[in-house]
Amino acid sequence: MAEPCFDVAHLGHVEVLTDKFDESLDFFVNVYGLTESGRDDTSAYLRGWDDYEFHTLKLTRSDTTGVGHVAYRTTSPEALERRVAVIEEMGWGIGWVDGDRGHGSAYRFTDPDGHIFELYYDTKVYEAPPEERPALKNLAQRYHGRGVCVRRLDHLNLLARDVSVIRDFMCEALGSRVTEQIQLDNGRLGGCWFTVNNKSYDIAYTEDHSGMSGRFHHVTYAVDSREDVLRAADIFLENGVFIETGPHKHAIQGTFFLYVYEPAGNRVEVANAGARLILQPDWQPVTWTEAERRKGQAWGLKTIESFHTHGTPPVETSTDKS
Amino acid sequence: MAEPCFDVAHLGHVEVLTDKFDESLDFFVNVYGLTESGRDDTSAYLRGWDDYEFHTLKLTRSDTTGVGHVAYRTTSPEALERRVAVIEEMGWGIGWVDGDRGHGSAYRFTDPDGHIFELYYDTKVYEAPPEERPALKNLAQRYHGRGVCVRRLDHLNLLARDVSVIRDFMCEALGSRVTEQIQLDNGRLGGCWFTVNNKSYDIAYTEDHSGMSGRFHHVTYAVDSREDVLRAADIFLENGVFIETGPHKHAIQGTFFLYVYEPAGNRVEVANAGARLILQPDWQPVTWTEAERRKGQAWGLKTIESFHTHGTPPVETSTDKS
Amino acid sequence: MAEPCFDVAHLGHVEVLTDKFDESLDFFVNVYGLTESGRDDTSAYLRGWDDYEFHTLKLTRSDTTGVGHVAYRTTSPEALERRVAVIEEMGWGIGWVDGDRGHGSAYRFTDPDGHIFELYYDTKVYEAPPEERPALKNLAQRYHGRGVCVRRLDHLNLLARDVSVIRDFMCEALGSRVTEQIQLDNGRLGGCWFTVNNKSYDIAYTEDHSGMSGRFHHVTYAVDSREDVLRAADIFLENGVFIETGPHKHAIQGTFFLYVYEPAGNRVEVANAGARLILQPDWQPVTWTEAERRKGQAWGLKTIESFHTHGTPPVETSTDKS
Amino acid sequence: MAEPCFDVAHLGHVEVLTDKFDESLDFFVNVYGLTESGRDDTSAYLRGWDDYEFHTLKLTRSDTTGVGHVAYRTTSPEALERRVAVIEEMGWGIGWVDGDRGHGSAYRFTDPDGHIFELYYDTKVYEAPPEERPALKNLAQRYHGRGVCVRRLDHLNLLARDVSVIRDFMCEALGSRVTEQIQLDNGRLGGCWFTVNNKSYDIAYTEDHSGMSGRFHHVTYAVDSREDVLRAADIFLENGVFIETGPHKHAIQGTFFLYVYEPAGNRVEVANAGARLILQPDWQPVTWTEAERRKGQAWGLKTIESFHTHGTPPVETSTDKS
Repeated sequence: MAEPCFDVAHLGHVEVLTDKFDESLDFFVNVYGLTESGRDDTSAYLRGWDDYEFHTLKLTRSDTTGVGHVAYRTTSPEALERRVAVIEEMGWGIGWVDGDRGHGSAYRFTDPDGHIFELYYDTKVYEAPPEERPALKNLAQRYHGRGVCVRRLDHLNLLARDVSVIRDFMCEALGSRVTEQIQLDNGRLGGCWFTVNNKSYDIAYTEDHSGMSGRFHHVTYAVDSREDVLRAADIFLENGVFIETGPHKHAIQGTFFLYVYEPAGNRVEVANAGARLILQPDWQPVTWTEAERRKGQAWGLKTIESFHTHGTPPVETSTDKS
Repeated sequence: MAEPCFDVAHLGHVEVLTDKFDESLDFFVNVYGLTESGRDDTSAYLRGWDDYEFHTLKLTRSDTTGVGHVAYRTTSPEALERRVAVIEEMGWGIGWVDGDRGHGSAYRFTDPDGHIFELYYDTKVYEAPPEERPALKNLAQRYHGRGVCVRRLDHLNLLARDVSVIRDFMCEALGSRVTEQIQLDNGRLGGCWFTVNNKSYDIAYTEDHSGMSGRFHHVTYAVDSREDVLRAADIFLENGVFIETGPHKHAIQGTFFLYVYEPAGNRVEVANAGARLILQPDWQPVTWTEAERRKGQAWGLKTIESFHTHGTPPVETSTDKS
Repeated sequence: MAEPCFDVAHLGHVEVLTDKFDESLDFFVNVYGLTESGRDDTSAYLRGWDDYEFHTLKLTRSDTTGVGHVAYRTTSPEALERRVAVIEEMGWGIGWVDGDRGHGSAYRFTDPDGHIFELYYDTKVYEAPPEERPALKNLAQRYHGRGVCVRRLDHLNLLARDVSVIRDFMCEALGSRVTEQIQLDNGRLGGCWFTVNNKSYDIAYTEDHSGMSGRFHHVTYAVDSREDVLRAADIFLENGVFIETGPHKHAIQGTFFLYVYEPAGNRVEVANAGARLILQPDWQPVTWTEAERRKGQAWGLKTIESFHTHGTPPVETSTDKS
Repeated sequence: MAEPCFDVAHLGHVEVLTDKFDESLDFFVNVYGLTESGRDDTSAYLRGWDDYEFHTLKLTRSDTTGVGHVAYRTTSPEALERRVAVIEEMGWGIGWVDGDRGHGSAYRFTDPDGHIFELYYDTKVYEAPPEERPALKNLAQRYHGRGVCVRRLDHLNLLARDVSVIRDFMCEALGSRVTEQIQLDNGRLGGCWFTVNNKSYDIAYTEDHSGMSGRFHHVTYAVDSREDVLRAADIFLENGVFIETGPHKHAIQGTFFLYVYEPAGNRVEVANAGARLILQPDWQPVTWTEAERRKGQAWGLKTIESFHTHGTPPVETSTDKS
């Protein structure tokens, strides 16, 4: 096995599309508890209270829903150059863009399912205005306590027609490691969890049965405790947010999860992973069979049907259950 | 600034010396909740239930207390070679040793305060016997629920006469990053927190005023939640374990802490850090002044005096308060 | 409305029948975390660590499962006399019995569905042996930390063919108050929750569709936090205990619940109710309609089918899903 | 022993005086998380989100701080008559008053230290306006999530020159039970905890060494979990609220506490008691000695000096440390 690659530091931000911009923004700021650090004609730039960058969620006006692009920050300018060379060689490159209000120039490419990605190093670090300065200087922003008050961007989940193709792609393009995966009886990969650092995953892909491509499953922010997830459930309940499933613990990755739909229909998760990290440099992927998955989540909750069907943008036919 | 170094993967294990072996072992297994995976004439090999290696704590019979050695695992065999070359060049090397029941050959060296370190790559992965196999295959061992039931080794804290010397040493020898530090009014460093990965620290050094060298401050295992730390306090209370301070939240690093003395007098911590990670590749050290430190811990608790004086082995005079 | 009645102080104990005595006892002591305070030829006397009486669960060898009897303690000897007079007048009395190892003489009667009840005042207070004495003298026993380590008996749930008959019975016989109830579209009561004190309920009845009578739904012990319930789920998982549903929050009463089956098949719950109490002396029953119940539990979890069908002893036919 | 008395149902409300009305109101509503249900020329009427009455805290403009009056609700109109007869016989009665926006006519009296009390039965139940209606109909108001978001009034603590006199008074006047007390070496009572229901206390008195009378120590609202108390500490920290001590667990009563001063200087607590209740009808008071108290709080935290000296209104001399 080659030495591990450390060119990519972390998931940087996710652009989420909405056809109900005002309602979505109200959800993300007042219910989910993100802070808006900037806005332009098309987008609001949002972040969790301890995200160190200007934004981790770019909420963009659109005539549909789903993901606009996904961005990772590299560990250095040199690492960015190395990754771009690899991706160009792979043939998935699009080219350089100037960046936006949150970061400098970035290299665009697509995954084999058509999702747009960016890699960047130059970033804009969030500087808290006086009223948002934390009492403790090692935090990015004060714990404001508004809504669910999520702490930081954790991961996202994309749908893809062929997860095994994605598996090879992510390992080569980003140097990601596979930490867990689902091996279906038909020989296909049902899902695959990747990480570029010590988090147990920063992106996951699951199989899309809709025939569509480039779809979005969910984005997740982390909170500090399972109690925060339970409290989030009450906040969603009292604010009329549709709760799809949870709180419960995933068998895969052990994440304590709660899934809701924001007003435009994009799935959003609140999660806590406890003290679990992937520190082992030679971690071997954990492979789950269909039989094992039939046992449900960690404590036996059956996976809700819509979790396998609902993505954004929605399927054009009426088969989408959401 | 040079590109970050990723040669060292994580803190591997800590050897703790005890002159009350049986009592210390009973504490670590039945109260703290480690699992014994092996024993030889001088040592018991212990680990938290989700530590992936054979051991993370080597408890060794001795005529005193303190730390025997500290070991880090590298990310690859090549990374180990690179680090050894650097350390030999620095002049702090001791030489190769064969390893023990928990890992293969290791390179020994000292820090400038005389603590013994090891670097190794070849390791023995823990294989759970049938009665310890977890219900979920992505865990190293079942959650046994015994005592405090700590999850994994988190960090240790050593005392040193001159922390600023240590600061340069750790960054060069291990490629560690400084995440936080205390700048005293007299120009000296009062404490320094280091990490080799995305944890906010894996080792900390604080100034030793005793005139001794090579002393140990504490070792810490992580639990999944602050509730686990609170529960630990009740378990320590009911088992007659001396609680020095806590539970409370550190201002530095934000760790939710609880400090106790194991029966031989070594300080042991139970801690939880929530979702906090250092993902930023260009993180700048947070520097705390004496004035800031006088505010106490995060919520105002004054730092207990013994925290500045008690280390192991104890000072020979009667000034040690423990 | 008449003045409230305070003759009955609290639910005292529940006798649970098992046809797998050794396995059930091992479950209740080592997994659920009760303490055995005594045993005779037919029964083990068990209690939560902060239950003040000798026992709150009497586990009795039997050729079947279900509930043996349910006992309430009165607030005084005079209150016991008053209640006995009322029950004799109602015509449901059986007569006085001598009590057992846990309490003195008691008055036996049945509810209209055939469950056996006892009322008693003279009790045996638990005296902790030296090794079980708590560090803090205001607790009944030390927090031993074994298994789920439930704190105290909280409530039980019985099945009955006609809950509305039970409703009148409990209010008259014990002076219970109805705190919540389910009004079915067919005019029947689907369930009813009662309390004799400030707890929001100490007994609940739900409709039995099996045609049988005198059946048992579950017994519940309280823990201090929702984190304790989540931890219980991991302990049950690792010990191979069947988890029926949860953890989740009930819409009715707001209890954070987790249901499992002990080895003989009796349903057992671990629950936490937070700071909720019924302090209002003129509390009006909260009535839930079928439409409201169809929304599922508090955060949307659908009530599992077996919750409506599984009781002990099981139905003789094969329709029991457990 | 006489039969227990159940004439008094629960602590109803506390009137707190402030000479910084606007700042105090902002604290109680936006930081502590109470809801304002009404206001008149002199007072704001406030309540926790699950308090069933119109108000539980009456915040009143004044030229000083401290407690205006303390009110208990009786279990029935007849019980109110009985209590008034007892108190008049005792000679501490003042007379009937018309009530205010929150309740009907009430009987006023004083305790032997000069604090004003009221007893009432007719009350105004809180009716949530549409925007405050809870998703679950068994709650008084929605969980709004603002600030600390305390659930309900729990207890208060008053200072008195002679606690043993108060002890006799409360048992006779309200039929309270003593659950715990501190017996000083000098023969005096250092503190005494009382309850009229199943809560382990609704009022406590501790000895006032200032020479003043009628002073206030603190008022406490309950939250559902210890995690809520820890979260409160962060909210207080970020809002510049002075934290006096905590979070930690009291040895007495086992309450998980956090004490702060609201802007005018009145001490306010956030607390959680877990599943602990006093269900035993013949509970015997737990008596703590000075030697036992010197061990500090449950996990060893030394009681902060200001806890023994700071009360409101403050002592006129400069000896008050707050």
